[in-house]
Amino acid sequence: MVSRRTARDLRNENRFEVLHALFELGPSTRQELARHTGLSSATVATLVTEFLSEGVLHIATVERNTGGRPQERLTIDPDRGRIVGVDVAETYVDATVYDLALGALGHGEVALDEHENGQAYVVDGIIRAIESAVEASGTEHERIIGVGVSMPGHVHPDAGVSVFAPNWDWHDVHIEEMLEKSLQISVYVDNPLKAVILSEMWFGVGRVVDSMAVVNLGTGVGAGIAIDGSLIRGATNNAGEWGHTLLQLDGRQCRCGRRGCVEAYLGVHGLETTLAEIDPEHPALRQPRQRDFVEAVADGLTAGDPALMDLARRTSHYLAAALGDLVNLLNVPTVTLTGWTSNALAEWLVPAVRDELPDHVMPGSLPDLTVEASQVPGNAVALGMAAFTLEQFLIRLGLASPARTRPQADPDRGLDQSRHGHV
Amino acid sequence: MVSRRTARDLRNENRFEVLHALFELGPSTRQELARHTGLSSATVATLVTEFLSEGVLHIATVERNTGGRPQERLTIDPDRGRIVGVDVAETYVDATVYDLALGALGHGEVALDEHENGQAYVVDGIIRAIESAVEASGTEHERIIGVGVSMPGHVHPDAGVSVFAPNWDWHDVHIEEMLEKSLQISVYVDNPLKAVILSEMWFGVGRVVDSMAVVNLGTGVGAGIAIDGSLIRGATNNAGEWGHTLLQLDGRQCRCGRRGCVEAYLGVHGLETTLAEIDPEHPALRQPRQRDFVEAVADGLTAGDPALMDLARRTSHYLAAALGDLVNLLNVPTVTLTGWTSNALAEWLVPAVRDELPDHVMPGSLPDLTVEASQVPGNAVALGMAAFTLEQFLIRLGLASPARTRPQADPDRGLDQSRHGHV
Ligand SMILES: [Zn+2]
Ligand SMILES: [Zn+2]
Repeated sequence: MVSRRTARDLRNENRFEVLHALFELGPSTRQELARHTGLSSATVATLVTEFLSEGVLHIATVERNTGGRPQERLTIDPDRGRIVGVDVAETYVDATVYDLALGALGHGEVALDEHENGQAYVVDGIIRAIESAVEASGTEHERIIGVGVSMPGHVHPDAGVSVFAPNWDWHDVHIEEMLEKSLQISVYVDNPLKAVILSEMWFGVGRVVDSMAVVNLGTGVGAGIAIDGSLIRGATNNAGEWGHTLLQLDGRQCRCGRRGCVEAYLGVHGLETTLAEIDPEHPALRQPRQRDFVEAVADGLTAGDPALMDLARRTSHYLAAALGDLVNLLNVPTVTLTGWTSNALAEWLVPAVRDELPDHVMPGSLPDLTVEASQVPGNAVALGMAAFTLEQFLIRLGLASPARTRPQADPDRGLDQSRHGHV
Repeated sequence: MVSRRTARDLRNENRFEVLHALFELGPSTRQELARHTGLSSATVATLVTEFLSEGVLHIATVERNTGGRPQERLTIDPDRGRIVGVDVAETYVDATVYDLALGALGHGEVALDEHENGQAYVVDGIIRAIESAVEASGTEHERIIGVGVSMPGHVHPDAGVSVFAPNWDWHDVHIEEMLEKSLQISVYVDNPLKAVILSEMWFGVGRVVDSMAVVNLGTGVGAGIAIDGSLIRGATNNAGEWGHTLLQLDGRQCRCGRRGCVEAYLGVHGLETTLAEIDPEHPALRQPRQRDFVEAVADGLTAGDPALMDLARRTSHYLAAALGDLVNLLNVPTVTLTGWTSNALAEWLVPAVRDELPDHVMPGSLPDLTVEASQVPGNAVALGMAAFTLEQFLIRLGLASPARTRPQADPDRGLDQSRHGHV
């Protein structure tokens, strides 16, 4: 079994515990960090010294209490570097430049035509979105310590490969290498489900609960899952494909090839199919692009369009049923909704879903269950990719430290234990 | 957030790592245990000394290598005590007496009428099954260190309560207290999904992989789930209700009240419904008890009965689809099948399910996926409950040790981190 927790893994984990505590608490004393993380004072002191020497933390304030020792308050040094987080979807690329404390500094967006699927076309869109964000934030290129890019579909982050992107029919595209060659900055790739759950853990409900699911609704649909503070990656980083669990055996054709998947009802194309069942002549269906379709639906709902009200009703029914499955299987106490369809339609979907959930969730899993629109600020995918990139940066820094032993461990594995799960 | 890992938790976890290593490796030296667990030699030495002083381990052999120090091989002392594991299902109670190394010593079974649901009736059945197992194994009552009882439905193990047993319409039954009063031995209750995954982790595929699902097919159906070596309990110990995820929105009525759940197709009553769709006059449907029905199906399949062949074909289709959902969501590398329906029908179901799985599983989760009948010996539910009881016994012993700090932590939580997940 290769999965035993090593001293090194634990050390990395402690390191991230301290980092997360700083994001949660703001400027903190060593004592506060020890109390919050449950780590010993000695461990916290060692980690803080390392972080300070790496320039990742700095001393924000020094308090002198009467008679006591001076108390240093530590904080992440936002100016230690810049990170770019990129959300690549079928219909757009959205890039954001962050400081090291993951404060957003500038943003760039490029529309992608969902009917184009060439590698050069997509890579060019990514580069242009990044350039636009870098320019908007006034960032000097050499200050960027890393770029995190979320790619749709199945991604192998260690290899930097887009294993399979169904909408583009991509197979084994070495996207990380292509981008690094072009940008001359280290790039980290992963998929949006991993990004949204990481950002939810760091900046959303994860500050209050340890187990949660984040449901991402857009062209595709899926769920990011965290259990007991660990992101669930699965054996091949392919966990979370809730969009390809069944709503209806032998039901609507799904783009994955199977019939009856959740995505065939809750992905944007699924919404279009439902609306066409209600009124095949509805003007919203004439929008050639998915983003415009969803916008037309939101506008029409505001105006009280009865066909669209019916669409919202049916979609809420499908969503309540599919969320019921997720909760029944995992008994997570919290589900949040994210993604651009959620953002546009949450006010119509969330109340209806809450009303119907008791019909789908096992009584023992219902009492404290909360379902809400995600409160993660900005683009949760870009923010999550920036957080991954920050983790990677800290791991790289850690390699230079003489305190590290066990060089045989794979440094790219990061804090996430779940990648050790496959033998 | 209440979920931070404490020094105490870690200590418990290390303690169980050593125990699991002993189950896996057999008699082992301290060095072998350190190598296998990834723990330091000092930690292993401390834990072994504790285990020896508690009588849980003993020295099996001493080897003297030329010139080297004598090497002690340690093993669990089977005669330190006896444990009873009990599997309470809707149709039977099955009890097994184990030694401390979890070797089975004797077995007792009592049939339950699935149409009876009185508390006294069920409790009496449990007591009689235990007495019969104790007698068959020639165990003296005072040597029994604990009894682990799996109850169907939603169980709260810390409180010892059967929160909800749908088949019996039980609500908040204090089963642990009732049994302890009668048996005068400490009792630990949990539900079968937690028991089967624990036994799979200790004695099944868990010896090779860290993440897995065990699908339990009987009157009810469900899945035990382990990710990265941790059992998934969920916020209220209600995770794994895969039987109440959808196969067919608004499909067959399920006994949970919802329509279209997996259990309505794969539970024994689901199989009866499918057979009635094929041939409402089939003689197997005249069996009044579920166990007899399943036996009649297995016999008829052996004889090549065409209606039953069709039943096996349709049931395999449902099972492949429902397992596809589990794998797509969790990307587990291994699924095993357990439970009495599986045991009776695995030879007809497993090959057909394997053939169809590629139609349901995302390509990225398919390559190394294995689906097989569980190889856990004997009754996996009873064995898992015995393993939980052993854990509880070690935790209780641990409380007596002066090395323990942090008395505010809840000792009954055991090694399982997941119960800390709910805030
Ligand atoms: Zn699909
Ligand atoms: Zn059900």
